[in-house]
Amino acid sequence: MTRQRHFHEELDRLKSILVRMAGEAEESVRLAVEALLERDRSRAERAIERDAIVDRLELEVDDLAIHLLALQQPLARDLRFITMAMKISNDLERVGDHAVNIAQEALELIDAPPFPALPEIEEMVRLASAMLRDALDAFVRSDVDLAEGLGPRDDRVDELHNNVFRIVLTHMMEDPRRIGAGMDLILISRNVERIADLATNIGEDVVFMVEGRTIKHQFEGIETIGGD
Amino acid sequence: MTRQRHFHEELDRLKSILVRMAGEAEESVRLAVEALLERDRSRAERAIERDAIVDRLELEVDDLAIHLLALQQPLARDLRFITMAMKISNDLERVGDHAVNIAQEALELIDAPPFPALPEIEEMVRLASAMLRDALDAFVRSDVDLAEGLGPRDDRVDELHNNVFRIVLTHMMEDPRRIGAGMDLILISRNVERIADLATNIGEDVVFMVEGRTIKHQFEGIETIGGD
Repeated sequence: MTRQRHFHEELDRLKSILVRMAGEAEESVRLAVEALLERDRSRAERAIERDAIVDRLELEVDDLAIHLLALQQPLARDLRFITMAMKISNDLERVGDHAVNIAQEALELIDAPPFPALPEIEEMVRLASAMLRDALDAFVRSDVDLAEGLGPRDDRVDELHNNVFRIVLTHMMEDPRRIGAGMDLILISRNVERIADLATNIGEDVVFMVEGRTIKHQFEGIETIGGD
Repeated sequence: MTRQRHFHEELDRLKSILVRMAGEAEESVRLAVEALLERDRSRAERAIERDAIVDRLELEVDDLAIHLLALQQPLARDLRFITMAMKISNDLERVGDHAVNIAQEALELIDAPPFPALPEIEEMVRLASAMLRDALDAFVRSDVDLAEGLGPRDDRVDELHNNVFRIVLTHMMEDPRRIGAGMDLILISRNVERIADLATNIGEDVVFMVEGRTIKHQFEGIETIGGD
C-alpha cells in the first residue's frame, strides 16, 4: 500500500471514530433526558457510566491526530481536517459531560415533588439532538450550508432556555417547596442549551475546515439568561 | 536567520500570545467579580466588552499554530506544544466567556435586594484565579509538578461550590423574595467553578505536552452538585 493511500485510510479512520463518538454522546444525552422525563433511576445511572466510553474515544482521536501530524506533512486542507477533528472531539467530550450533569440532576429530581410540566425542555432536547446530528453530518460530508445553518437554530434553543428560566422562577416564587426541583430543572435546561452551543461550535469548525474562513464569534452578542 | 531559528522564535511568539490571552481572561474575571462585590455596573460592562480581546487572541493562536504545522514538520515535542497551545487557547476563550456570564449575572444582581454575604464565592474566585495563573506558569516553564497539583486544588473549589449551592438554597427557602438573586449567585458560583475546571484542563495539557502521557479524566468521578 502506498504511503499516501495509507494516510487517507487513516483520515477516514479518524472521521469514523468521531462519528462513533458523536453517536455515543448523543445516546448518553437521550438516556439522561429519558431518565428525567420518566423518573427512571437506572437510565440515569447508565448515562453516567457511559461517559467513560466518550472519554476514551476522545483520547483515541487525539492520539491518532497527533500521530498523523507527526508522521506525515499534511497539506492545508488535510491539516485543517486533523486539527478540527481534535477540536470536535473536545466538544463531543463536553457533550458527554453535559449528559452526565443532566443525569445527575435527574437523579436529584426523582425524589422531589412533581413539578409542572415543561414541554419547552423536551423541545430544546429535540432541537439540540438534531443540531448535534447535523453538525456531524456537515463534518462528514463537508457540508458548509448545513454547518452555517446551526447558528440560527441555536438562537431558537437560547430563546427556549430563557423561557424555561422565567417559567421555573415563577413557579418557585409561587411555591417555595418547588425551589430545589426548580433549580435542578434550570440547570438541566442550561446543560441542554450548552449542547446546542457545542453543536454550533462544531459547525463553525466545519466551515473553517472546508473553506479556511472563520465564522466563529459571529453569532455572539445575543444575551442569554444564565448563559454558560 | 536559519529556518530552525525562525521556527523557535515563532514557537516563542505562540507562547507569548497565550500568556497575554491568559492575562486578559484573568483581568475580565477580576472585573466581573469586582462588579459583583461592589455592585458596579461600569466594571460589569467593561468585563463584557473585553471579551472581544480574548476571542481575537484565540483566533491568533489558532492561525499561528496551523501555520507552524503547515510550514514545518515539527518533531514530537514541538508538535505536542503546538497542538496543546490550540487546546489551551480554546480553554482560555471559555474562561473569557465565563467572565462575561459572571458580569451579566452581576448586572442582574445590582437591582436585587441585598443577599446575605457569601465569603465562599470570594474564596472560590481567589483560588480559581490563582489556579489559572499557575496553569499558565506551568505551561510557560513546562512545570509538571505545578500542573499536576491543580487537580487536588480543583477539588477544593468544587467543595466550596457545593457549599454555596446548599447555603443559597436555604436562604431561598427561608425567603422566596430572594429566589431571583439566589439563582444568580448559584450561576455565578458555577461559572467560577468552571474556571477552576478549565485551569485543571490546562494543567493536564501541560503534562501531556511535557511528558507525552495523559492524566485526563483521572480526577473524575467526584460528583459536583449542579456541575457543568
